[in-house]
Amino acid sequence: MLKQPASPLKVGRLLLTGAAGNLGKELRPRLKSYCDMLRLSHRSPIGEPGQGEEIVVAALEDKDQMQALLKDVDAVVHMGGVSTEQPWDAILAGNIMGAINLYEAARLNGTKRIVFASSNHVTGFYRQDEVVTPKSAPRPDGFYGLSKAFGEDVAQMYWDRWGIETVSLRIGSSFDKPVDRRMLATWMSYDDLERLVVAALTAPIVGHSIIYGMSDNQTTWWDNTPSKHIGYRPLDSSDVFRAEVEARQPTIDRHNPVALYQGGAFVTARG
Amino acid sequence: MLKQPASPLKVGRLLLTGAAGNLGKELRPRLKSYCDMLRLSHRSPIGEPGQGEEIVVAALEDKDQMQALLKDVDAVVHMGGVSTEQPWDAILAGNIMGAINLYEAARLNGTKRIVFASSNHVTGFYRQDEVVTPKSAPRPDGFYGLSKAFGEDVAQMYWDRWGIETVSLRIGSSFDKPVDRRMLATWMSYDDLERLVVAALTAPIVGHSIIYGMSDNQTTWWDNTPSKHIGYRPLDSSDVFRAEVEARQPTIDRHNPVALYQGGAFVTARG
Amino acid sequence: MLKQPASPLKVGRLLLTGAAGNLGKELRPRLKSYCDMLRLSHRSPIGEPGQGEEIVVAALEDKDQMQALLKDVDAVVHMGGVSTEQPWDAILAGNIMGAINLYEAARLNGTKRIVFASSNHVTGFYRQDEVVTPKSAPRPDGFYGLSKAFGEDVAQMYWDRWGIETVSLRIGSSFDKPVDRRMLATWMSYDDLERLVVAALTAPIVGHSIIYGMSDNQTTWWDNTPSKHIGYRPLDSSDVFRAEVEARQPTIDRHNPVALYQGGAFVTARG
Amino acid sequence: MLKQPASPLKVGRLLLTGAAGNLGKELRPRLKSYCDMLRLSHRSPIGEPGQGEEIVVAALEDKDQMQALLKDVDAVVHMGGVSTEQPWDAILAGNIMGAINLYEAARLNGTKRIVFASSNHVTGFYRQDEVVTPKSAPRPDGFYGLSKAFGEDVAQMYWDRWGIETVSLRIGSSFDKPVDRRMLATWMSYDDLERLVVAALTAPIVGHSIIYGMSDNQTTWWDNTPSKHIGYRPLDSSDVFRAEVEARQPTIDRHNPVALYQGGAFVTARG
Amino acid sequence: MLKQPASPLKVGRLLLTGAAGNLGKELRPRLKSYCDMLRLSHRSPIGEPGQGEEIVVAALEDKDQMQALLKDVDAVVHMGGVSTEQPWDAILAGNIMGAINLYEAARLNGTKRIVFASSNHVTGFYRQDEVVTPKSAPRPDGFYGLSKAFGEDVAQMYWDRWGIETVSLRIGSSFDKPVDRRMLATWMSYDDLERLVVAALTAPIVGHSIIYGMSDNQTTWWDNTPSKHIGYRPLDSSDVFRAEVEARQPTIDRHNPVALYQGGAFVTARG
Amino acid sequence: MLKQPASPLKVGRLLLTGAAGNLGKELRPRLKSYCDMLRLSHRSPIGEPGQGEEIVVAALEDKDQMQALLKDVDAVVHMGGVSTEQPWDAILAGNIMGAINLYEAARLNGTKRIVFASSNHVTGFYRQDEVVTPKSAPRPDGFYGLSKAFGEDVAQMYWDRWGIETVSLRIGSSFDKPVDRRMLATWMSYDDLERLVVAALTAPIVGHSIIYGMSDNQTTWWDNTPSKHIGYRPLDSSDVFRAEVEARQPTIDRHNPVALYQGGAFVTARG
Repeated sequence: MLKQPASPLKVGRLLLTGAAGNLGKELRPRLKSYCDMLRLSHRSPIGEPGQGEEIVVAALEDKDQMQALLKDVDAVVHMGGVSTEQPWDAILAGNIMGAINLYEAARLNGTKRIVFASSNHVTGFYRQDEVVTPKSAPRPDGFYGLSKAFGEDVAQMYWDRWGIETVSLRIGSSFDKPVDRRMLATWMSYDDLERLVVAALTAPIVGHSIIYGMSDNQTTWWDNTPSKHIGYRPLDSSDVFRAEVEARQPTIDRHNPVALYQGGAFVTARG
Repeated sequence: MLKQPASPLKVGRLLLTGAAGNLGKELRPRLKSYCDMLRLSHRSPIGEPGQGEEIVVAALEDKDQMQALLKDVDAVVHMGGVSTEQPWDAILAGNIMGAINLYEAARLNGTKRIVFASSNHVTGFYRQDEVVTPKSAPRPDGFYGLSKAFGEDVAQMYWDRWGIETVSLRIGSSFDKPVDRRMLATWMSYDDLERLVVAALTAPIVGHSIIYGMSDNQTTWWDNTPSKHIGYRPLDSSDVFRAEVEARQPTIDRHNPVALYQGGAFVTARG
Repeated sequence: MLKQPASPLKVGRLLLTGAAGNLGKELRPRLKSYCDMLRLSHRSPIGEPGQGEEIVVAALEDKDQMQALLKDVDAVVHMGGVSTEQPWDAILAGNIMGAINLYEAARLNGTKRIVFASSNHVTGFYRQDEVVTPKSAPRPDGFYGLSKAFGEDVAQMYWDRWGIETVSLRIGSSFDKPVDRRMLATWMSYDDLERLVVAALTAPIVGHSIIYGMSDNQTTWWDNTPSKHIGYRPLDSSDVFRAEVEARQPTIDRHNPVALYQGGAFVTARG
Repeated sequence: MLKQPASPLKVGRLLLTGAAGNLGKELRPRLKSYCDMLRLSHRSPIGEPGQGEEIVVAALEDKDQMQALLKDVDAVVHMGGVSTEQPWDAILAGNIMGAINLYEAARLNGTKRIVFASSNHVTGFYRQDEVVTPKSAPRPDGFYGLSKAFGEDVAQMYWDRWGIETVSLRIGSSFDKPVDRRMLATWMSYDDLERLVVAALTAPIVGHSIIYGMSDNQTTWWDNTPSKHIGYRPLDSSDVFRAEVEARQPTIDRHNPVALYQGGAFVTARG
Repeated sequence: MLKQPASPLKVGRLLLTGAAGNLGKELRPRLKSYCDMLRLSHRSPIGEPGQGEEIVVAALEDKDQMQALLKDVDAVVHMGGVSTEQPWDAILAGNIMGAINLYEAARLNGTKRIVFASSNHVTGFYRQDEVVTPKSAPRPDGFYGLSKAFGEDVAQMYWDRWGIETVSLRIGSSFDKPVDRRMLATWMSYDDLERLVVAALTAPIVGHSIIYGMSDNQTTWWDNTPSKHIGYRPLDSSDVFRAEVEARQPTIDRHNPVALYQGGAFVTARG
Repeated sequence: MLKQPASPLKVGRLLLTGAAGNLGKELRPRLKSYCDMLRLSHRSPIGEPGQGEEIVVAALEDKDQMQALLKDVDAVVHMGGVSTEQPWDAILAGNIMGAINLYEAARLNGTKRIVFASSNHVTGFYRQDEVVTPKSAPRPDGFYGLSKAFGEDVAQMYWDRWGIETVSLRIGSSFDKPVDRRMLATWMSYDDLERLVVAALTAPIVGHSIIYGMSDNQTTWWDNTPSKHIGYRPLDSSDVFRAEVEARQPTIDRHNPVALYQGGAFVTARG
């Protein structure tokens, strides 16, 4: 399903967290060819493993389960945790404690590369007429954005101090297709998501790098120039859906923060 | 005539000033599908309106005519005013007083979006081996360039103070085709002009944004990265005319300011 | 004790958290003249209030206690929480949950200005030959630094979303006097601490501003230019102690991360 | 009255425009020692010249009068024109037409150095918690600020194209003493004004340089680092007036644009 | 062999130094159509000239030979000198003395444009997860890199002082095809090399410009945005060789400086 | 003779090259108290050593002599080599070969800190109305400036590759007093020179740092903010000589490159 030349670089044991989440489900079949063994985790049972898979139930906020989960893991694609604006306690458990538990477990188990599903909501309070880069200062738009900014800081610290490499993916809107005008800027196709995850997993040297996750959309607020070394090139674009999206949402209320800020509905959402 | 997916977003009443000027004539038929009613203005009569058109004669330096002109206008494509180096008095009337009159009229009439034909001559005194961006400080190359820098400042002030949005287009050389080597860098096709104007008109949030108007030329002095949120992607290129242009102008006199500075002939032109 | 002209600007009720901590004890007598009522809080009893004081026992990780604590508070000097590298659980409670509880309580109680004791350990993994500014990206040096980076992000979000203003003080080493060569760069006298807190409390407009807390030391790694609007001017300097400090520590082991990085001993400390 | 070593560098004939305005009156006696002949101009008669002075009545908007005024002038201190928010027509005459007339006259008469009284209102729509520099993009706060931004562009163009040097002084608040809290940041004493004008007049090479005009105030929003080559060092400070000012204005309404933006009352003033 | 529209712009006499070196041999047949006479030089005899060619033997470290070599030369493509890490004496002769001799000869003979084969090893000590630009400060990785940094400084000085224009090409890895993972980022095809040299030779105005020489590779560490005025657009990509390269080198040892730094094997090579 | 608190930090054996040159002679008596043994070198005999001194004759271009010279040396203050614009051959020997020989000898002998007398002529082709920093790109003004730019690159490479630390001092004009108007910006007193050298020698961590060498002059073109970690604070100023200097040189010819560029007379000097 991926048109770019497949990379033969294989991880031994690759852990995919949040394997039953929206993006986890998309990535599960796609990541198999990049590893010898794909370990899948979720906080609750998710059925039987397929060939080349193994399944572990583990809650991110449980330190011991996390340390067991990372055993013999060579690299992680961390899609687990809370992925929408939620009450603080849920985010604290899954994304704050979860981030610490994951990296401590990686440190203790010798895991050396993590692909971290961060979010564009780390910078959600920039306006939609500002172009930001992975070097721009965080402006989180809520508890969720705060927790992802924290995760990026954790990644930076574990790189500076312990030599664990991370690519933080500030994912835009990864869905089947864009459904509103904001997504014309933020959408990332599932194929591009795969390309991004694979590039992040196989780039030779990454330290802690941050990159926005979006397709090759005509309109965008994000400039990935500082992360060209990751080697991510999107091949899809929201523009094939532009007519459909604009027909559905012909007008914008510029007085609504939801339309004004990059974070969209998150800037007013209450968990 | 536009290959990119047409935007269904329609302005109610769209005013095109300078409708009988070079670019106004190109834009007149192209803008019709983006509005319910296209109001055309010029300082002297320009014939009968077509279907979906209305024509108003108004001089930019006449405050009252301008306030009448903007009545019930939802958005403006401001191509009017002086567009070449001229004696100061002409520029003062059309471009300085004209800019104030236009924005005051927009403020009084509640118009909320203006696409302003600024010019690359705002930055004409950068050298042709410098790459500038919409954030670079102005270096106007004459009275004309000064008046366009003024217009951009007016746009900024009416945004900061009155909430009127503007996209200032620092148009390069929008002609049928490039005719000298400078235009290999500065040329913008009419189709790309249309794409740019439409993107500027329909981008959800623009505040005051500045963007250079050029096609996808191989050589360029302008980097539009800070304005990617406008969503302008040129599809044409001066390079299909390169052989023809270079044959016509095989040598450059580097001691001539006209060849040295981005403003070209404007840097020595007297109005 | 402060030589600069005293500011007559008074807060009504000012809350000082961590009132029994090292810096809290220094600030307690100094802050009285800047408010009508100084509310002091600590996680355990701290004796009787003096005149113009009131004492409230509250634990940062206790949401309800924090909401009660902020009642009728006009501004906060937040010195509470963990202030050294500690095991994660302690930092999670005092600095992560504590930050959220404090800002939620401020939001619910209508408190509009917070002076937040952040730390230089937010950027502790820059080298000692790099000059950083309040705009530099975080490079925390441990759990403590991570928690302070989180606190700054919380402050940013509550400003962007709820209009609560914060000055985050990236405090260097605020002690009686500098005792090692690192502190020649990082030391801040108690008088300068007072000047900084008062400036942060009384500056007319701060949004979320970040500023390093140091005296006017000859050697420094921090450039506060982006925060000149705070109006902080240190009057003391570590240099009067230089001979004493250098006599005590004449050599540096450049291969030791503790000497190499700005965070000093924190970069290898385990909680 | 100036404590810094007096410069013996003398201009032959120095023109001071706006000689009867507030700052003109302060500068008139101070500038005498820096020139052989001080020509004073104003739009209406201003009495008899003193020794070493000559007086010329000239209106800025009158091209011929301006060309006569500049005859045999070696350098100009341009304090003339409108200096507050006014109706557009007044500003157009004095500051827009006036700027062009002044520079055209300088060009025709061979005058090579102009000290131009620009204004902080060129950047008045930055917030009071932002630190801007002479390189920051203009954000004028009204017609007056627009006209000063225009004057700076004129200065840049006459430098790039005609080799006339200018120092644009973005003057803050030059009064006897600061009278409100905004002026704690923006105040410039008359002695410092003199230092600034003299530095601008005598610096060997300036091209077109921009510099903010303020005393050595503890609080400031302006960073003059890019213009250190001018050699301006203020010796006064608003802080000796701080207690008095803060007693007069103990509170700030942060919801009022006048308190929020650097331009202060100008951001809402109507001419 | 070049797909982009051929430029008809012809140099009169073009000198290609290092004509028998790896890249010289590739360029020799390709450059003929861009000049009336192609002068080829090498430090030892290289056979007979073809039609439109002339051959001169000259050693770069020999001042007199170099002055003779440049006689009547209109432009130079300087591929000569040492192109790998070598003992210092060899590099001193060919690249340090050679650079001075070449530019002095150009100055004395009135040659006005030089295309200088610099190298990515000028910035070889940046990490492979950093994106650098032609404006980034040099971090040479050895004697060879030092000599190329020197050559760029020579070019800058001869431009500033003597008006000789140079484009310094920081060439990556110009070979038949990429043979290791580093080259996935650094590779430049011979066709793209030709495009780059021709663009550098024929761009109207270049002053001293620096540009990285690479194909349109998916992964890269170099951002050529500041040199868009050169008009170089690569058409090839290392990615068609990715599968082959990754199969050959599936793992990277991140502890090896050779894998960590952009300079690759040069960072540890001894001349 | 130094008013700032003396540093007790002593180097064991400190080498001062160029000990009989202008600055060497000034530094010789001043450096004694910072080391146990001061080794003095020059290319020709310079008399008898004083107490705590040893003298070695060595030519910079002689590799073997340099390797002997560095034996048992803990740190170097490198004032040797050519210090004015000279014919290329002299500069090649003393400054190019000399730099390589010095650093190779340091590497082989285990010397870990070098204070390198670079020069403002590394950036001599910036204009006198530009403010540059230690991060600004080199624009050397002649062979001498080129050789110092080369020396800085050598220092950078030996730091990146071999861990030898250097502070490169871009010395302005270190003389008894300033004698022309350029020196009002560039002058550094001998006491400030001592302060700078001592700070560079004793700063705990420097990697490769670059800093301009000037006194606390009112006018300056150089901003040392990026090197505040060195801890250099000048206490003298050219301004006490301003009246004397300006009396001697009341006018400037702005058309003369010598007055226009920061390098002054070097920009036209021929070696």
